[in-house]
Amino acid sequence: MTKTLLLTGYEPFDRFSDNPSGIIARQLDGQELGKGYIVRGAILPVDSQKMPGVLSELWDKYQPSICVGLGLAFGENSLRLERIGHNWIEIGSPDNGGHTPCGSIVPDGPAAYFSPLPLKMVIQSLLERGIPANLSDHAGTHLCNMLLYLALHRAGQLGQDGPKSGFIHLPAHPELAAKMALPEPDGGTNKLGKPGPSMSLDLMQKGVLAALRLII
Amino acid sequence: MTKTLLLTGYEPFDRFSDNPSGIIARQLDGQELGKGYIVRGAILPVDSQKMPGVLSELWDKYQPSICVGLGLAFGENSLRLERIGHNWIEIGSPDNGGHTPCGSIVPDGPAAYFSPLPLKMVIQSLLERGIPANLSDHAGTHLCNMLLYLALHRAGQLGQDGPKSGFIHLPAHPELAAKMALPEPDGGTNKLGKPGPSMSLDLMQKGVLAALRLII
Amino acid sequence: MTKTLLLTGYEPFDRFSDNPSGIIARQLDGQELGKGYIVRGAILPVDSQKMPGVLSELWDKYQPSICVGLGLAFGENSLRLERIGHNWIEIGSPDNGGHTPCGSIVPDGPAAYFSPLPLKMVIQSLLERGIPANLSDHAGTHLCNMLLYLALHRAGQLGQDGPKSGFIHLPAHPELAAKMALPEPDGGTNKLGKPGPSMSLDLMQKGVLAALRLII
Amino acid sequence: MTKTLLLTGYEPFDRFSDNPSGIIARQLDGQELGKGYIVRGAILPVDSQKMPGVLSELWDKYQPSICVGLGLAFGENSLRLERIGHNWIEIGSPDNGGHTPCGSIVPDGPAAYFSPLPLKMVIQSLLERGIPANLSDHAGTHLCNMLLYLALHRAGQLGQDGPKSGFIHLPAHPELAAKMALPEPDGGTNKLGKPGPSMSLDLMQKGVLAALRLII
Repeated sequence: MTKTLLLTGYEPFDRFSDNPSGIIARQLDGQELGKGYIVRGAILPVDSQKMPGVLSELWDKYQPSICVGLGLAFGENSLRLERIGHNWIEIGSPDNGGHTPCGSIVPDGPAAYFSPLPLKMVIQSLLERGIPANLSDHAGTHLCNMLLYLALHRAGQLGQDGPKSGFIHLPAHPELAAKMALPEPDGGTNKLGKPGPSMSLDLMQKGVLAALRLII
Repeated sequence: MTKTLLLTGYEPFDRFSDNPSGIIARQLDGQELGKGYIVRGAILPVDSQKMPGVLSELWDKYQPSICVGLGLAFGENSLRLERIGHNWIEIGSPDNGGHTPCGSIVPDGPAAYFSPLPLKMVIQSLLERGIPANLSDHAGTHLCNMLLYLALHRAGQLGQDGPKSGFIHLPAHPELAAKMALPEPDGGTNKLGKPGPSMSLDLMQKGVLAALRLII
Repeated sequence: MTKTLLLTGYEPFDRFSDNPSGIIARQLDGQELGKGYIVRGAILPVDSQKMPGVLSELWDKYQPSICVGLGLAFGENSLRLERIGHNWIEIGSPDNGGHTPCGSIVPDGPAAYFSPLPLKMVIQSLLERGIPANLSDHAGTHLCNMLLYLALHRAGQLGQDGPKSGFIHLPAHPELAAKMALPEPDGGTNKLGKPGPSMSLDLMQKGVLAALRLII
Repeated sequence: MTKTLLLTGYEPFDRFSDNPSGIIARQLDGQELGKGYIVRGAILPVDSQKMPGVLSELWDKYQPSICVGLGLAFGENSLRLERIGHNWIEIGSPDNGGHTPCGSIVPDGPAAYFSPLPLKMVIQSLLERGIPANLSDHAGTHLCNMLLYLALHRAGQLGQDGPKSGFIHLPAHPELAAKMALPEPDGGTNKLGKPGPSMSLDLMQKGVLAALRLII
């Protein structure tokens, strides 16, 4: 019987004209992983009010055994696997819906959940394949952590029948890092910035796919 | 008439099992650039006593119109174009020849030279092509700066007939960054480190080649 | 009636010959805060097996209404107030007892607790007084997080009667940052390192004291 | 006979409401150093067109044997002693005079000069006294480097009779670092930033004074 791994990414947001997480989720949509697993890729809105509903619909539609979220961490240089999702959202600049939430994600929900995925084994294996990866204990306070918390909370409520969930932060891809270092067209300066770190989309895709195969 | 662009890289050194600068120099050896230019790629020893002699032989052999050095800057995330070479070498850990020099590169030589290459134009163009690049005013105190200083000094002495020279520091490639985060086989720990930033060899080669075409 | 605020710091550990957290805890021992509060300062062992027992004895002895832990975060430049303590300890280099634990702090305990202290108000007030301070969502995986988790867990179990707890990471003091940049006596090199950031003990004491007065 | 050590700092500039370099220069004005030396402290304008003239007047007025410039390097955590001044000024945001120069400081001047001060000895001594300090090979492309280059160039032209010159970059003081992390009054956000590193004015003054006594 076919089992589903739901792989979500995000649409572009804020100053970023593109989002590698959405690109990778789309590229891996339909990918067979072995052991009867198929990837369903989806792109989520960067809107803290709409995202939970869209996520819920995806869960209802696909009944995934595993959920892995992807998101952009501009400034990061490696695949960053998140160990913990916590019950707090706090966004300084408005999300794509114009919201700047600050508070609990799930009122009266537990403070946090650990991801049940074998993260260290995945990271060691990625490093041995030449793919930079590292472990993180803090998924931020934006929609990435919100998604991880919501997915782990659902699993916590469903118990054995709930999906196993995790989250991988991605670096910028080189095109995005380079673009962010160019002066804005109407910025009143022609000064070139220093680019942030990046990873090629090819290597990100290869790394995410390898990670998915290791956790099924 | 064919003109030569000498492109040097370095062999592996210190804790680094591989060196992207040598790889790229070898890959681009023989590459035609247009305008009658051909690349001669060479790998230099990371030995502060031997390197100047090997460099001199390459100059004698190829009579290059342009010299571009490549070197590894572990921790850097972009192609880093060096604006200045200064007359000082100072190496903490021994180079491959076991030397730890500390002093002037050319006794009584000028304190520094600026590279005559159009670095900002190159960086702007690389960024517009989606290749992270940035400008640096300090090439370090290791063999990379030594090479840049020696090449600029030679040009300074030869005047119009001297080669135009420059230096590009390269990030680690992903395989190297990942490997450096794995515990050493006999390190007494199995703790995984956090990888440094990296850039794919493909993108480095594409970026260096684009830079060479822009400066001829 | 006098109420007790238990302020803990740590003894020196690892490569660090001194620990500002222990120094500040000792300096503030006996300090009256107003509103009937007095500080009881104590220095905890950096031994993951012994520390919980010593902490328990302090709780029994002082019956504190508030517990604030202090700890060194070498590399940090501000007073870093921790928002969350999570149920995981993982130490790479052995602690002072030679232990390298990796696992849950409290088996079957909740994944995490949020500190109930008004951290943002404290940070804003410290900044307005010219004292660098910032908010953190990750207290690490060493004894600092262990202490925060244990204190919050105790409060969680005792409910209304439990102490309110929090944790403040401290920068190195300048003497420690400077010392760490000097070559080790037998290190085989005379190379000077680059010092990490620091904050004077005076300012740390002033900042911690101000924070304590804001949270009572 | 009394000899003069000219110690310059700068006025506030750009986003910075205060400048520790000017504060320290003023505090040490009139300080006797021993060996017949007295400090003359002065505050320079952060105006790339006016500063050289003001500096020239100070040289004429005081005929200093030694010139030491101080300047703010926001983001730096140590006293940063500069080894080299180079012949390039390039300022992105306008200076206090509204200028954004980009080009040679002294047309046809040498590319760079090394400072003749015994920087490593000073740094080692500062570290041993518990004062964070480090060596730098790049004084930036703003007025700090301009001053260092101009002072070294003057010495180069005067030969034996010229002053010995150097430059020390200073961290922010804590009040400035804290203030920069507060939201701007009309910034449309109440989000607190993460403060940069700092050093107390007391320790900066102590360190600069110790450095001056070591170089006379």
